[in-house]
Amino acid sequence: MKFLHTSDWHLGRHFHNVSLLDDQRQVLNQLIDYITLHPVDALLIAGDIYDRSVPPTTAIELLDDVLTRICQQLHTPVIMIPGNHDGAKRLGFAAQHMQSSGLHIISDFTQMLQPVVLSSEQAGEVAFYGMPYSDPEQVRDAFKNKVSTHDQAHQFLCQQIVDTFNPAQRHVLLSHCFVDGASTSDSERPLSIGGADCVNHQHFLPFDYVALGHLHQPQYKGQEYIRYSGSLMKYSFSEQYHKKGMTLVELNQEGFVSAQPIPLTAPHDMRIIEGELETLLALGQQDPHADDYLLVRLMDKHAILDPMEKLRRVYPNVLHLEKPGMLMDSEQPMGRARLARGELDMFRDFFLEAKQEPLTELQTQAISQVIQSLKNQESN
Amino acid sequence: MKFLHTSDWHLGRHFHNVSLLDDQRQVLNQLIDYITLHPVDALLIAGDIYDRSVPPTTAIELLDDVLTRICQQLHTPVIMIPGNHDGAKRLGFAAQHMQSSGLHIISDFTQMLQPVVLSSEQAGEVAFYGMPYSDPEQVRDAFKNKVSTHDQAHQFLCQQIVDTFNPAQRHVLLSHCFVDGASTSDSERPLSIGGADCVNHQHFLPFDYVALGHLHQPQYKGQEYIRYSGSLMKYSFSEQYHKKGMTLVELNQEGFVSAQPIPLTAPHDMRIIEGELETLLALGQQDPHADDYLLVRLMDKHAILDPMEKLRRVYPNVLHLEKPGMLMDSEQPMGRARLARGELDMFRDFFLEAKQEPLTELQTQAISQVIQSLKNQESN
Repeated sequence: MKFLHTSDWHLGRHFHNVSLLDDQRQVLNQLIDYITLHPVDALLIAGDIYDRSVPPTTAIELLDDVLTRICQQLHTPVIMIPGNHDGAKRLGFAAQHMQSSGLHIISDFTQMLQPVVLSSEQAGEVAFYGMPYSDPEQVRDAFKNKVSTHDQAHQFLCQQIVDTFNPAQRHVLLSHCFVDGASTSDSERPLSIGGADCVNHQHFLPFDYVALGHLHQPQYKGQEYIRYSGSLMKYSFSEQYHKKGMTLVELNQEGFVSAQPIPLTAPHDMRIIEGELETLLALGQQDPHADDYLLVRLMDKHAILDPMEKLRRVYPNVLHLEKPGMLMDSEQPMGRARLARGELDMFRDFFLEAKQEPLTELQTQAISQVIQSLKNQESN
Repeated sequence: MKFLHTSDWHLGRHFHNVSLLDDQRQVLNQLIDYITLHPVDALLIAGDIYDRSVPPTTAIELLDDVLTRICQQLHTPVIMIPGNHDGAKRLGFAAQHMQSSGLHIISDFTQMLQPVVLSSEQAGEVAFYGMPYSDPEQVRDAFKNKVSTHDQAHQFLCQQIVDTFNPAQRHVLLSHCFVDGASTSDSERPLSIGGADCVNHQHFLPFDYVALGHLHQPQYKGQEYIRYSGSLMKYSFSEQYHKKGMTLVELNQEGFVSAQPIPLTAPHDMRIIEGELETLLALGQQDPHADDYLLVRLMDKHAILDPMEKLRRVYPNVLHLEKPGMLMDSEQPMGRARLARGELDMFRDFFLEAKQEPLTELQTQAISQVIQSLKNQESN
């Protein structure tokens, strides 16, 4: 049996005020093309389908379209759970009416204990269990127990599921959580303030495969079959070196066989570029991917008039600008950065840039007097 | 063939800051009980399922539960369209995946032209067409035509549907609109500012039955088979004399046979009571329905200290209080009402009520001086 494991689609997400919906659509088209060419037995989505609990209607339409193409046109079952970004009840509306068409949205604990059973010649029957994202309070409330951490909650929920195992079947779990020791990025929202959100991977050992969501970097923890597929695409500059995609999983009668990354390529990469303005502008002319989403670190040590406008003429999708060249490490105890240059030097740079000629001696005296008188006013 | 026609559930509605969800749940339980005892071939909901496009999750859960019981447990198909209060795309998410389980949410024009066909011995095949609520702009945009009013839009959409008629079938339409000349109440949100929202009933004549939603009073227009079922329950005091419920419709091979009202009773009626405070308090002691949702019109001509608190001890669900006794028609040109009593009289009432004794002569002089000095200050 072969299935695709994905997670963290975050449909409807904005990044620095840019909607990523068109990028998401293109990446999902690649996913659909892959399934068309290489049919699989199921597609799993391990939570954070949407970026927020009340998603924009454009994101709802995109998901609707994608699910119709996968379930109805390609006849590939889809199994998904809500993540911490999703609204479980909202996402799970009418889920029971969708099962017969192969769409399985597992959004409550009752459904958690009723696996979706698929079968193939190679692996026999495989039971897919979805553990909807839930914090310890929800587990405590639903099961009237005393779990107080994410770890205890997952231990308890895993045990509930393991107790129902049919030994004749293989067992796959979808879960959205933070496995202890795994690598984070800047685009995951913490599950708990204070860090009590870690889950020990040991709870997952009884399964044949665990399709995890939440962390945006593809990785496995403890065992090769306890894996994060990583997010659909990059959602922060901290992910610039991540290899995004899905995971193609193979099982047989004995259980886990292999997990193989299948890359997905976003139309705009998310990168950090660094250098002096003139150098970057020259490089940009030759850059075939100049329309990537960029964080630019300007290393120039003098002030520049409207650098964003200049950069965007060459790199249309500069989303954020940092000027480390203009800052220096402060010697203050808090390590706070401060401007390295005085007002007169700043004005001199500005004048040169705006007028294309240097300040004269007389102009220098005049502006010095203005600065001094402003400073006097300030200190009074 | 027998089916139930309902509309305007408005799940999640609040009325004077009171959630009506528990009332709605009880009324829907009656609906389910009816279908359990008297099986029907389908349940139609002609729009305004929810009260707003982003409903609260409690309303989503209620609808989910009701639909599961009707479709999955009672095996009764449900056919619905969004109304002007619903978010069509939000309500219609994954609708294609639900059809095979008998849940039909018709939320776009493509689905409008693909009827849900049900059949019975008595009526043969019956095609149910749903016309999702849409304003003229949406119709113009979707069909690249020039309709500019609700009437033109409905004429056009009806013609689109009629053109696909299979003469071997009977034809039922669900639509959410304001048919010209029909009776309104205070709880419908106008479809168009300025009144260009009227639709001529003539467009609907080719159908065998037209299940209308939007107006909250049960009624028919033009022909007995072009009907509003009215809302699930009362949603304003202006509906106090409405008979709420559903409409049981019967069709045979020749078409429309009958439409019969089936009452639904809300746990709290919505009523207006009128009289002097002491009378109303005395009547309330004997009133078995004292917990109804009430608008109270106090006819007392003198001021009363905290009448709401006094009333709520007897009538716990007084939602609104009017004091026509304290007002009189003004003779000002704008007909604006004003307080009929002077400050001294008002204070005299208040003092009597608070202290249980009348003002003495000395107290009257003192308060008169205070009032006069305040008035002098005001006019300076």
